[in-house]
Formats: sequence, structure tokens, C-alpha cells
Amino acid sequence: MRDCVRRSSMSGKFFPERSMIMLGHARTPVTIVGLGSMGRALAEAFIDADHPTTVWNRTAAKANPLVARGARHVEAVEDAVAASPLIVTCLTTYDATTEVLLPVAGALRGRTLVTLNSGTPAGARAMSAWAGGHGARFLDGAIKNVPSAIGADDTQLYYSGSDSAFAEYENTLNVLGGDISHLGEEPDLAALYESAVGATLLPALVGFFQGAAAVQSRGLQAATLIPYTVKWLEMIASVLPVFAREIDSGDYTEPMSSVRLFLEAAAWDEEFGRETGVDVSWNAPLHDLVRRAAEAGHADHSISALVEILRKPQTVA
Amino acid sequence: MRDCVRRSSMSGKFFPERSMIMLGHARTPVTIVGLGSMGRALAEAFIDADHPTTVWNRTAAKANPLVARGARHVEAVEDAVAASPLIVTCLTTYDATTEVLLPVAGALRGRTLVTLNSGTPAGARAMSAWAGGHGARFLDGAIKNVPSAIGADDTQLYYSGSDSAFAEYENTLNVLGGDISHLGEEPDLAALYESAVGATLLPALVGFFQGAAAVQSRGLQAATLIPYTVKWLEMIASVLPVFAREIDSGDYTEPMSSVRLFLEAAAWDEEFGRETGVDVSWNAPLHDLVRRAAEAGHADHSISALVEILRKPQTVA
Ligand SMILES: NC(=O)c1ccc[n+]([C@@H]2O[C@H](COP(=O)([O-])OP(=O)(O)OC[C@H]3O[C@@H](n4cnc5c(N)ncnc54)[C@H](OP(=O)(O)O)[C@@H]3O)[C@@H](O)[C@H]2O)c1
Ligand SMILES: NC(=O)c1ccc[n+]([C@@H]2O[C@H](COP(=O)([O-])OP(=O)(O)OC[C@H]3O[C@@H](n4cnc5c(N)ncnc54)[C@H](OP(=O)(O)O)[C@@H]3O)[C@@H](O)[C@H]2O)c1
Repeated sequence: MRDCVRRSSMSGKFFPERSMIMLGHARTPVTIVGLGSMGRALAEAFIDADHPTTVWNRTAAKANPLVARGARHVEAVEDAVAASPLIVTCLTTYDATTEVLLPVAGALRGRTLVTLNSGTPAGARAMSAWAGGHGARFLDGAIKNVPSAIGADDTQLYYSGSDSAFAEYENTLNVLGGDISHLGEEPDLAALYESAVGATLLPALVGFFQGAAAVQSRGLQAATLIPYTVKWLEMIASVLPVFAREIDSGDYTEPMSSVRLFLEAAAWDEEFGRETGVDVSWNAPLHDLVRRAAEAGHADHSISALVEILRKPQTVA
Repeated sequence: MRDCVRRSSMSGKFFPERSMIMLGHARTPVTIVGLGSMGRALAEAFIDADHPTTVWNRTAAKANPLVARGARHVEAVEDAVAASPLIVTCLTTYDATTEVLLPVAGALRGRTLVTLNSGTPAGARAMSAWAGGHGARFLDGAIKNVPSAIGADDTQLYYSGSDSAFAEYENTLNVLGGDISHLGEEPDLAALYESAVGATLLPALVGFFQGAAAVQSRGLQAATLIPYTVKWLEMIASVLPVFAREIDSGDYTEPMSSVRLFLEAAAWDEEFGRETGVDVSWNAPLHDLVRRAAEAGHADHSISALVEILRKPQTVA
């Protein structure tokens, strides 16, 4: 097992003193390709941190507010790439990114390409191979936050790919968020972690929506759940390190919460759904995982033993 | 719509000064029935706050450490009930609670019964009717935390049932956790909120376990996910008020995250599962909800519009 995460100790905007320019510490010129809601926020952060910032977008008009703020806008992608040693893309997908950069691939040689879109590990690997083939260093990054959080001290971004590129541009990338890490040289680790971390989102939200529908069935507002649900999520976050330890050691025998406990609670779900008129059927495969864990001998083990069931894809007869 | 939540402004241990006893502010005598992991923690908190504390448990030996700490142990449930105006039970279920109290129901008259087990709203209503029938005031409470958190300032408990009992015993109940609320006179509201809030637990955990299995498939430790997942859960918690507002207003037209966004991400899940050898099939009904929301005209609406789909149980042909 490896534990290759290197976390940055830096936080917040770097080079806080304008006078440092005078002293010769010129900020790295940066190009942003893609000015959607996220790309725009990235460009704003670099502009506000006094990086010479060149911007390009398929729909050129989206550059206007950034030009007003101090960016340089170019019409041709080739000029955008040629403008800076560091090219940050924020398009919807890796495919869109390749589509935009393909005609100007030759211009990438010697530069560093940083892709900040969401996507699969396989997509990140393909992107990395493509960039490497054209003589560029490559970093893929994940932003698990909203555009308005860009630039804040505690905003988290994690990267994977070229060690040397991360070392060279860590200070520059710190402008986008103060909590940055490099997960390792393998270019797909950021995408892997993004998906691994993101796997809680839709299920947790649907759990919240189910609760909202339930209290509404009693004429109560969904907003009345907030103080309780927020504290509940804090509680869940606080126990994850215990589950992670159990999973890493493979020792599930000293449960904080047992599989049996969840098995018993499963029966109530149905009754709860009937009583509140809420469709709780999406929980059925979760209960099925719990049941299979119990059948596999984990009834009195920690609920984290479910990982053993998830690891063995069910073979359909 | 009602917003009947009354939150306590008090926090922490009450009656901090021993001298107050001298001044005649004697602490309320309390009886704890049920000394499992949670009941024991409840008894300890009352003992430590200098409440005269009587304890009873089916397996009597579990009372020993509490007696050593200052509790009074009685062998007969009837004596336990007779000892205090406030009876707090913490058995596994409402059924177990009725089973224990049935033979001594007559002794409950004029007292207040507080049940702190988990259960369904229907179970809480039945318990309330039973207690009321025997002349006792009734409160049901939910503890969405672990035994070791009992007694801390920010530990949250919420109650429903008798207004007058909550008003009279609020200070006493504050001993168990500093963040307490009374959700309303209807006795099943605490159980309703407990289930509504709890609906995120298993899905969020399974999401985490899926991520853990995925990083392990690359030889990485599950523990490496923690800093990212914890921040991610904080992010989710921070956006829930926005979703709650959308759900309460029924206006989903200014999405922070659209149904379409989740529809696109759904396709990646399959690929992610194949690549990491993780069974992601439990996500299928979640994706199905997203798809049905899109089909119902919510594609460019907020993901919170899923509540409209959950509210209409699917009619099986
Ligand atoms: N917004 C967020 O909250 C958030 C958070 C974390 C991660 N992300 C990730 O960041 C990436 C961008 O998200 P976003 O919210 O900024 O999306 P967005 O507002 O929809 O913007 C998409 C951008 O991609 C461009 N684009 C798409 N296809 C293209 C193509 N074939 N050729 C050229 N340009 C193309 C668009 O250009 P046009 O302007 O010409 O359409 C636009 O600049 C996504 O991968 C997303 O998952 C977003
Ligand atoms: N522990 C937690 O983290 C936690 C958190 C929140 C809520 N809760 C809720 O608190 C309640 C108690 O949980 P716990 O963790 O304390 O459970 P526990 O450790 O298993 O203790 C169960 C208690 O119930 C008693 N009991 C069960 N059936 C009985 C019966 N028929 N007659 C008499 N006594 C009976 C047991 O007596 P014996 O000792 O004689 O077996 C024991 O005192 C549950 O509803 C649980 O959901 C627990």
C-alpha cells in the first residue's frame, strides 16, 4: 500500500506584495482556455493575483468581463497557447479539450497543460498520453467546489501528473485555492480521487430529499431539517477515519456500528415510506448489500465490511 | 407550513455550582431504565451532574459501575419508576419498553416518561397513547450521536411530545447534551425527524465504501480519501439550505446543480466501476430517479427537483 499524498503547506494568495514585481519576482503568465462558470472564476483569480492572464473561449463574448478586469483576450487558440508557459483548460470534458487543442498541438511543446474538467481516470490517462506525445508536461486537477470558492484559503484542489510541473507551478496553482495537494505522478489519480470522493454526493442528496419529502408530508418545511442534517453530516465525517482504518486493516471485528444494526433499521424504512407517502425503493439495493454482508458472515462486524461485498461484483446467473 | 421548532438557548451542564443545592435548587431525581451502551452514558451524565439517579436494567450486573459512580440501583422496575418524577428509558425498541413497563404501568401516573430509543413515528405515537392512558406525560427523544458524546455542549438531542413536560425538564435534559430542541407537541415528530435526518447515513457510507474499494484497487489506502471526503461532506452540508429553499418554494428553475449535470455524470459511474472492479450497481435506482426527473421536464432544473419524483410512489404495473 502506498500513501503518496503530498499536501501543500501553503495557503491563500501567494506573492501578496505588489513590490515583489519590482524586485523581479514576476508572476507566471497563465492562459485559461474555457470561460464557462468555472473557467471564468479561474481566470478572475489569476487576474486578481496579478498574473499576466490570457483567455480564450469558443464563444468569444464571454471574455469581455475578464478583459475589463485586466485579461488579454485572443481570438486564435494558437495565440492563447503561445502566450504562456502554463495552459489551464476548463472545458466540459477531455474530448472537448482535445477537440480544441488538436489543431494547435505543435504549440504545446515545452509548456505545461493543466486540465481542470471532471472526467474518468481513463480520460485523464488518454489526455496525459496525448499531451506527452506533443512534448508538454501534464497535470490533471480536480476542483470539488463551486466557482465562487475559487481563490479562497481553504478551497481544495488536488492534482496528479508531472512531479516537476507541480513543483514548478505549485505557487501559481495556489492562487486558485489554498488547500492543494499532489496525489502522485500517475496522471489519473486526481480523476480517480474525484470519482471516489464524489460517490457520496448523489446518494447523500437523495437521502436528504427523501427526508424533505417526509417532513413535508406532515406540513413541515424542508428547511426545518437543516440544523439536524448538518450536524448529522458532521457526525458521519467524524467517524470516517475509523471506518477507513477498519478497511485498510481488513479487521472489522470491533464494530462501532454493526451490519446487524443496519439490517434492523432496514425494516423500518419500508414502514416509514408507507407512512409518509415517499418512494424509498431506491434504498433496496443498499439493504441488499447489508443483507449479503450479513450472509457472508459479517453480521456482527462493522458496517465498513460492506467494502468486501462491493469489491466482488455480483455474478449474474 | 409550520415551523414549530423551538431550539434551546442553553448549553452545557446546568446548575454548575454545587452551592446551589444549599440554596434549595435541588436537582431533579431521575430514573434510567436500560443500561446498554447508550443508557449507561445517560446515567453517567446525570450522576456527574449531581442528579439523584436511580438505575434499572434487565441484566442487573450492568448497574455495578454506575453504583460505584454514585447511582442507586433497584432490582424491581416498580421501585425504579417510583423513585423519580422523570423516567428516562433507553431500551432497544418501543416494544421492549412497553414489555418492561407494562406490569408497573399504574406507577407511572403523574410522572413523565422520556423514551430515547430509535423507532418509527407510528411506534412513538403508540408509546405516547399508552403512557397517556396511564396518566403519564410523554416525551420521545432522538440522540443522533454516539454514547461518548453524551453530556457535551454541542451534542444534539431533539424531543417531541408534552410541551409542559419539556418546559419543566428542559434544564434537566440539557445535562445529556447542550444542543436540545422541542419539535412540537405531536409525540412522533422526534422519530419522524430522526428517520428523515438518518436517511443520508447508509447511502453516504456506501458511497464512501465504494470510493475506498476504488482507491484500494490501485494499491492506495482508504485513509488517503479522508481529507478529501471530509471537505466534500462539508461542502454538501453547506449547500443543503439552498436545496431546502428550492424544495419549500417549489421553484427549481435557478439550479446551482442541474438534473442534466447528474445525468451526464451517471454514465461515468459504469465505466468507473468496470475500471476499478467495484460493484456500483446500487447506484442504478438513483440514476433512474435522475432520468425520471429529466423525463418529467426537470432536466434544466435543480437536482432538488428529485423530491417531486420521490413524492410520487411508482405504481407497479
Ligand atoms: N461549475 C462548477 O460548479 C464546477 C465545479 C467543479 C468542477 N467543474 C468542472 O469544470 C468543467 C467546466 O464546468 P463549467 O461549470 O465551467 O461548465 P460550463 O459553464 O458549461 O462551461 C463549459 C465550457 O466548455 C466550453 N466547451 C464545451 N464544449 C466545447 C467544445 N466542443 N469546444 C470548445 N469549447 C467547449 C464552453 O464553451 P462555450 O462558452 O463556447 O459554450 C465553456 O467555456 C466541467 O468538467 C465541470 O465538471 C465545475
Ligand atoms: N449506541 C448508540 O450509538 C446509539 C446512538 C443513538 C441512539 N441509540 C439508540 O438507543 C437505544 C439503545 O441502544 P444501545 O446502543 O444502548 O443498545 P444496547 O447496548 O444493545 O442495549 C440495549 C438495552 O436494552 C435492553 N433490552 C432490550 N430488550 C429488552 C427487553 N425485552 N426487556 C428488557 N430490557 C431489554 C438491554 O438489556 P440487557 O442489558 O438486559 O440486554 C439493554 O439495556 C436503541 O434504540 C438505539 O437505536 C443508540
